[in-house]
Amino acid sequence: MVDNPRVGVLGGGQLGRMLIEAANRLNIQVNVLDAAASPAKQISAHDGHIEGSFKDAAAVKKLAQISDVVTVEIEHVDTNMLEEVASEVIVEPSWKTLRIIKDKYAQKHHLKEHGVAVADSIDLEGKGPDGLKEVGTQYGYPFMLKSKTEAYDGRGNFVVKSEESVDAAIEALGNRPLYAERWADFRLELAVMVVKTKDGVLTFPTVETVHEDSICKLTYAPPRDVSEATAQRAQDLAKKAISAFEGKGVFGVEMFLLKDDSLLVNEIAPRPHNSGHYTIEACPISQYDAHLRAILDLPISQASLRLREPSIMLNILGGKTPDSHIQVKNKALESPNASVHLYGKGDARPGRKMGHITITAPTLAAAEREMQPLIDFVDEQNGKPLGPRIDSASTQPAPLVAVIMGSDSDLPVLRAGLEILQKLEIPFTTRITSAHRTPDWLREFSKNASSTSLKVIIGAAGGAAHLPGMCASWTQLPVIGLPVKATHLDGLDSLLSMTQMPRGEPVATVGINNSTNAALLAVRILGAEDLRVRERLRVWMEGNEVEVLRKDGALLEGGWEAYLKGMGK
Amino acid sequence: MVDNPRVGVLGGGQLGRMLIEAANRLNIQVNVLDAAASPAKQISAHDGHIEGSFKDAAAVKKLAQISDVVTVEIEHVDTNMLEEVASEVIVEPSWKTLRIIKDKYAQKHHLKEHGVAVADSIDLEGKGPDGLKEVGTQYGYPFMLKSKTEAYDGRGNFVVKSEESVDAAIEALGNRPLYAERWADFRLELAVMVVKTKDGVLTFPTVETVHEDSICKLTYAPPRDVSEATAQRAQDLAKKAISAFEGKGVFGVEMFLLKDDSLLVNEIAPRPHNSGHYTIEACPISQYDAHLRAILDLPISQASLRLREPSIMLNILGGKTPDSHIQVKNKALESPNASVHLYGKGDARPGRKMGHITITAPTLAAAEREMQPLIDFVDEQNGKPLGPRIDSASTQPAPLVAVIMGSDSDLPVLRAGLEILQKLEIPFTTRITSAHRTPDWLREFSKNASSTSLKVIIGAAGGAAHLPGMCASWTQLPVIGLPVKATHLDGLDSLLSMTQMPRGEPVATVGINNSTNAALLAVRILGAEDLRVRERLRVWMEGNEVEVLRKDGALLEGGWEAYLKGMGK
Repeated sequence: MVDNPRVGVLGGGQLGRMLIEAANRLNIQVNVLDAAASPAKQISAHDGHIEGSFKDAAAVKKLAQISDVVTVEIEHVDTNMLEEVASEVIVEPSWKTLRIIKDKYAQKHHLKEHGVAVADSIDLEGKGPDGLKEVGTQYGYPFMLKSKTEAYDGRGNFVVKSEESVDAAIEALGNRPLYAERWADFRLELAVMVVKTKDGVLTFPTVETVHEDSICKLTYAPPRDVSEATAQRAQDLAKKAISAFEGKGVFGVEMFLLKDDSLLVNEIAPRPHNSGHYTIEACPISQYDAHLRAILDLPISQASLRLREPSIMLNILGGKTPDSHIQVKNKALESPNASVHLYGKGDARPGRKMGHITITAPTLAAAEREMQPLIDFVDEQNGKPLGPRIDSASTQPAPLVAVIMGSDSDLPVLRAGLEILQKLEIPFTTRITSAHRTPDWLREFSKNASSTSLKVIIGAAGGAAHLPGMCASWTQLPVIGLPVKATHLDGLDSLLSMTQMPRGEPVATVGINNSTNAALLAVRILGAEDLRVRERLRVWMEGNEVEVLRKDGALLEGGWEAYLKGMGK
Repeated sequence: MVDNPRVGVLGGGQLGRMLIEAANRLNIQVNVLDAAASPAKQISAHDGHIEGSFKDAAAVKKLAQISDVVTVEIEHVDTNMLEEVASEVIVEPSWKTLRIIKDKYAQKHHLKEHGVAVADSIDLEGKGPDGLKEVGTQYGYPFMLKSKTEAYDGRGNFVVKSEESVDAAIEALGNRPLYAERWADFRLELAVMVVKTKDGVLTFPTVETVHEDSICKLTYAPPRDVSEATAQRAQDLAKKAISAFEGKGVFGVEMFLLKDDSLLVNEIAPRPHNSGHYTIEACPISQYDAHLRAILDLPISQASLRLREPSIMLNILGGKTPDSHIQVKNKALESPNASVHLYGKGDARPGRKMGHITITAPTLAAAEREMQPLIDFVDEQNGKPLGPRIDSASTQPAPLVAVIMGSDSDLPVLRAGLEILQKLEIPFTTRITSAHRTPDWLREFSKNASSTSLKVIIGAAGGAAHLPGMCASWTQLPVIGLPVKATHLDGLDSLLSMTQMPRGEPVATVGINNSTNAALLAVRILGAEDLRVRERLRVWMEGNEVEVLRKDGALLEGGWEAYLKGMGK
């Protein structure tokens, strides 16, 4: 690679703009081929840009002549011309890859050949309504009818619901090269940005994508209600898929998570992708940095692709009025953790991608709480019934502490501790999970605990008091044991049952009936990481110190007899 | 404020460039007054820029005519012209503020009048060598001789070490308007970026700044070896200082932390500042976003100014060769958490600010370990003796767990637990801190613990076993109590001494002599937040499960008699 390589990019929309934002920081010249004043050109003042269409072969050739590496922000380009210029300039990713991916049927076929799980599909080129009806017989209804080319954001797709809708399908897409896909009954959609470098294949974290009217609306990193193991499987599948293609750069891999927990690749984009916008704020290296580094053979490592904080991205799509995106931007500026990106596209048109908002927060739950008013705002703006809402329970902060008890008779003992948690603003939940009367429920609760928002469990129990010890055996979370004084032995039975756990599964035991200390220990554990919690605890402890010093002053001043009298003793 | 206000900025260097980077995201037009192709203009393609000097009154007037709000990236501007145009265009911060601040003596005087702690100073204008000698008599040597105007990055400052150096001082600065300042014997330097809005004054976190040859080299957020209380005092002082000035925008406040822990304001910048570069990656809203929002009356809240992750910024200063900054950039690209910013300034000149690097990481210690090779690289590049080095001990990961014991006789009991910590890769430290023989040392250790890298303390003790309880009374960190079996009572004495702490200061007690469980509890506490730790624990627990299942298989297969024989029993 030459020193100071110039990058040529086909297309100057928002993806090109954010690519240039990354390039500007490293002082890399990016030559854009697109219309004058396109989004990307607005933030790049030099004379290397070319005015024209990225579909125009002559313009592509001109771009190649003044660039050292040519890349794309869109796959619907003239790959014949890219093949031609590839003898004189580096083209990344390879024109071969672009040629396969721009034809969705060829893409699926290629993936299947390389052992990557995709939905079944049937070529329909040259086949009329009868071909579609055959698909209906073979796949059942509904099935997807898709255009092989020029299809994105739902354009070029048609859901064939029954034999009766075959004619409507032909009318909608009949003049395009078509194929059919078996319906994927998915639970939710996941996506992974993959980085292909000269040395190997790296992955950004798995995100959940939410589409509305077939356009990406939201991404969640990490995904909601998806286990870490499944997220890892999605990264592995995405890696496998991209390993099947030639060339360097970032690739977006969209996947279905089916109801049986299996994964299918839905679609690949050979470039930065909407599902990777969140990386700008949420990761040390964004997908745009990663793309530049990959195509320019600059260093990049998996460690750069970690999540700094959970994040949610909301697209700003054009609404009913030309300034709808400005209204969303203004609303988003009121949100403390929101980063707002406008793409410089002029007036809004319905569904046009005008910008996006990324919120990062210490927990995904906190990001969700902050994002919800913005989702409501855009839904209202678009006259939509307010979409799938976070129910009122989960607009409460997600619980960090679970207080579990063997029996409701333990609840009065717990009161003082629960009050402390409330006072110190620790979100918590209380559950009855008897080790002996509901052993399966305790097992289920304990096994799932670490996949929730919970970080500490307090288990209160009397007598044999197996509750916290059994819980500790099924979870990796810290478990605090609160021995409750039962009928005999003054609580010593419970205390010893908790402390004397075998090597391997500790229970952090506090004093008999001392729920205050159980709660304060939970607060200390949370405060080990969260300095705001630690500060609240410090202030609380200072208050106790002041109170005892005040009493000492009163005792000194009034003498012990008056003090006792004041105590009514 | 009009819709789509245009911002005019005097100066188009790196600060203007990063301001435009923020403005680009919100699609705000920024008109730059500076030379053609200055750093800021390179990333902003529109016809509103003006070619000329920001010191040229006519050019300023021209800029004001095509802008709705005028601001500065440097304070050494013509405030008379700004006063004139202020009748037609909004100028932020106020020209009055710029006029006071650009004269450092007036700035100090103004702060002092408003009750802000600053170093004592004496006006020397019109006074010759005798004036300086009088200062020496009054303040003692060394003292600082400073130019009132056009002084930055150490230019315009002279340390007068003794009466003998008065002539050299006059020779160096004699043709400038001068004043003298009492020497500030500081422990380290702190800085706070302050945001003054129409509604009030907000502050970014406190950072530590490290200067070399009077130029900012590094910033640390949060500062090293500075308590949270002191960091808060610095924010309060910075807020007080900026409240003394008119106008809106961000202000950099540089402070000295003296050896007696008191704070003095050293210098104020009425604009984005080098000590605030870290905010681009480390905070939800950068200092540049904040400046735009403040001068345009857009919403901004204190919650946006939090630290997402600890961060360190290293300036890329020009070295001995014209491409020295490129070498530093290339080195930094190998660092996984580094964000690299080059300013587009062409060839390097020694000391010229060519760019900067920001590393953010989950802990400051991790950021330090990653930054150290880059610091070494620039030091070596500049032929400097390797500067204050992190000693070999601290290149080890900073300890997260302290294992303290009342006596070295507890160490054998602790061995199993220490081995677990090692196996699960938890950095820890071991100390002897007897509650009764070294009560003051235990107090000091416990009080300081929460200002260090420590997150959990394990306290082992036998007999009366006051160690963990006393430690818990002096810290907010979670304290795990490990009762050690002493001569009498089989350890029950220690166990009860730990569990039965009064309401307020819990000790998380584990079984007698069970240091394995004390260590595993510490691991669980760390894993509550750190999912990598939690995963290591999960794998470890799975290994135990497999081992017991293997034993069960052997018992089933061979029968109990053979099994006992195998045990040698």
